[in-house]
Amino acid sequence: MDHPRDEIVRTLKAAKNVLVATHIHPDGDALGSQIALGNILRSLGKNVFLYGEDQVSHLYRFLPGSAQIETLLPALNGFDCAVALDCGDCNRLGAAMDPLLAVHPFVVIDHHLGHREFGDLRWIDPDRGSTGEMVYDLAEALGAELSFEAAYCLYAAIVSDTGSFRYSSTSADTFRIASELLRKGVKPAEVSGKLFDNFTLKRLNLMRMVLDSLQLYAADRLAIIAAPREVFVKTGTTQADAETFINYPRSLNTVMVAVFLKETEKGLVSVSLRSKGTDYDVAQVAAVFGGGGHRNAAGFKLPDTSIGEVQEKLLAELLPMVTR
Amino acid sequence: MDHPRDEIVRTLKAAKNVLVATHIHPDGDALGSQIALGNILRSLGKNVFLYGEDQVSHLYRFLPGSAQIETLLPALNGFDCAVALDCGDCNRLGAAMDPLLAVHPFVVIDHHLGHREFGDLRWIDPDRGSTGEMVYDLAEALGAELSFEAAYCLYAAIVSDTGSFRYSSTSADTFRIASELLRKGVKPAEVSGKLFDNFTLKRLNLMRMVLDSLQLYAADRLAIIAAPREVFVKTGTTQADAETFINYPRSLNTVMVAVFLKETEKGLVSVSLRSKGTDYDVAQVAAVFGGGGHRNAAGFKLPDTSIGEVQEKLLAELLPMVTR
Repeated sequence: MDHPRDEIVRTLKAAKNVLVATHIHPDGDALGSQIALGNILRSLGKNVFLYGEDQVSHLYRFLPGSAQIETLLPALNGFDCAVALDCGDCNRLGAAMDPLLAVHPFVVIDHHLGHREFGDLRWIDPDRGSTGEMVYDLAEALGAELSFEAAYCLYAAIVSDTGSFRYSSTSADTFRIASELLRKGVKPAEVSGKLFDNFTLKRLNLMRMVLDSLQLYAADRLAIIAAPREVFVKTGTTQADAETFINYPRSLNTVMVAVFLKETEKGLVSVSLRSKGTDYDVAQVAAVFGGGGHRNAAGFKLPDTSIGEVQEKLLAELLPMVTR
Repeated sequence: MDHPRDEIVRTLKAAKNVLVATHIHPDGDALGSQIALGNILRSLGKNVFLYGEDQVSHLYRFLPGSAQIETLLPALNGFDCAVALDCGDCNRLGAAMDPLLAVHPFVVIDHHLGHREFGDLRWIDPDRGSTGEMVYDLAEALGAELSFEAAYCLYAAIVSDTGSFRYSSTSADTFRIASELLRKGVKPAEVSGKLFDNFTLKRLNLMRMVLDSLQLYAADRLAIIAAPREVFVKTGTTQADAETFINYPRSLNTVMVAVFLKETEKGLVSVSLRSKGTDYDVAQVAAVFGGGGHRNAAGFKLPDTSIGEVQEKLLAELLPMVTR
């Protein structure tokens, strides 16, 4: 039987004009995969349009080619094919979802657990640590020679989504691909420096404030940290600056589930959930509140509420889970 | 011409009783390499004695086989051969240096930049990210089949000394070896969890206090944090709990050199130095004070002094370096 990738390879080989999209609020895996696939398809003589609803965050502008991503939707009738990368759900395409999905064939490449099927040709593999790895395999299957820039973007994608090779989705394949990307000239310390050593002093101040909010429940098995609106205002930071702070409560040796509550706009509370091991599926908890994600990393947002209110509702879901 | 490893392979193949040592205050690379080499040599039918002056820290007792390390020096006349792993300098062997070095042939396997030659047979490669990688190659050259336990220890060694594949010494070879170790059944999230997600609450409290000490110099290019004796006492922690805190000032985007001053005993100040890129050789700075290390990671200790005094002397060395 055909691998689901094979039909995608045939489609991309035959296409002349390809639109490549990824999810809203794109992270390193989304952007790295998107830019790399653009680069790969161009190297095969295709016309490529990289579309993203959001401006690329300052955190990812170091990716070579990030300026190619356009935030204005082009006329869509000229495309032979569209590709959505790293989207676990069609809503993650953003406001342009409907016109985008009207492009056929619509190709979907994703590694999210709990992926909700959409599009015409799908290659979904929740065992992969990142969409970046899948794009690497796709490049091989397409017979494309990876440029340094594409290798750099794929390496950044992989490092981002595996937490620098620390998450359980890291596999022998992940390392095999990382090894090949380094042979293209990628310098791991440089990419990791751009991804991780980008603390600003105000961000460090935000971190100190957020860590002061730590609360522990259920014999220290559940940890909650919070960033109310005023800490962002006081430190001159934004939500993006807080992105990785959930790792601190998560790294406590007793903690099985960690929660980060952020009041990103007045009354809008954004929640990140992390768990360890296989016993605590936080994607299920996020789903109760209309969110999604992976077993060990999930999230959701609630409008017209407060951190205290969300915390109370979450405790009702989480306490039985971590104490059972 | 022979690779320096070849003569070591011949020696180990011929030996029956082998002593394997590593450096004092052993880290993950030292212990992981030592235990793994013991395991490998035993699989080849050798009698192996693992010697270490220090008890294995609670941080590394998860390494399978860590209980095999003996802190009492055995009678040394029965050994055909001794191996020192990860020692940049013979003084790193500790108090038993002289009797140990009287064992011949004395084999030295190390990856430290600025390694000071000692022993009879030396394989020194500062381009390698860890001694663990070198032990992996040695196992291959010996024709040994790696056990799960040896693979686990080598993976922990590599992850420890490359900062989870983030330091510049991470190479395509590092990833190739990591990939092979995973094929032996090593679970990266489990090892990383043991190495990194081992924050105790008191350690998090120590971190918050140490971060409050942050001082910046030279247009924020030089960062200094300090842990005086009293913060360890107040939080009920030890020096080992503070081991990775240098990464926080290091991760500030403007910082090129980071310093961590620890008063580990009354009057004894232990200094860690980190730098980014190729322009700031902190091993040279450490050497001024009788210490050593790598270009981007070095350290030293001074007795009968205070944090303030050491800071002053260090600023005299570092300020011209970071401002030139």
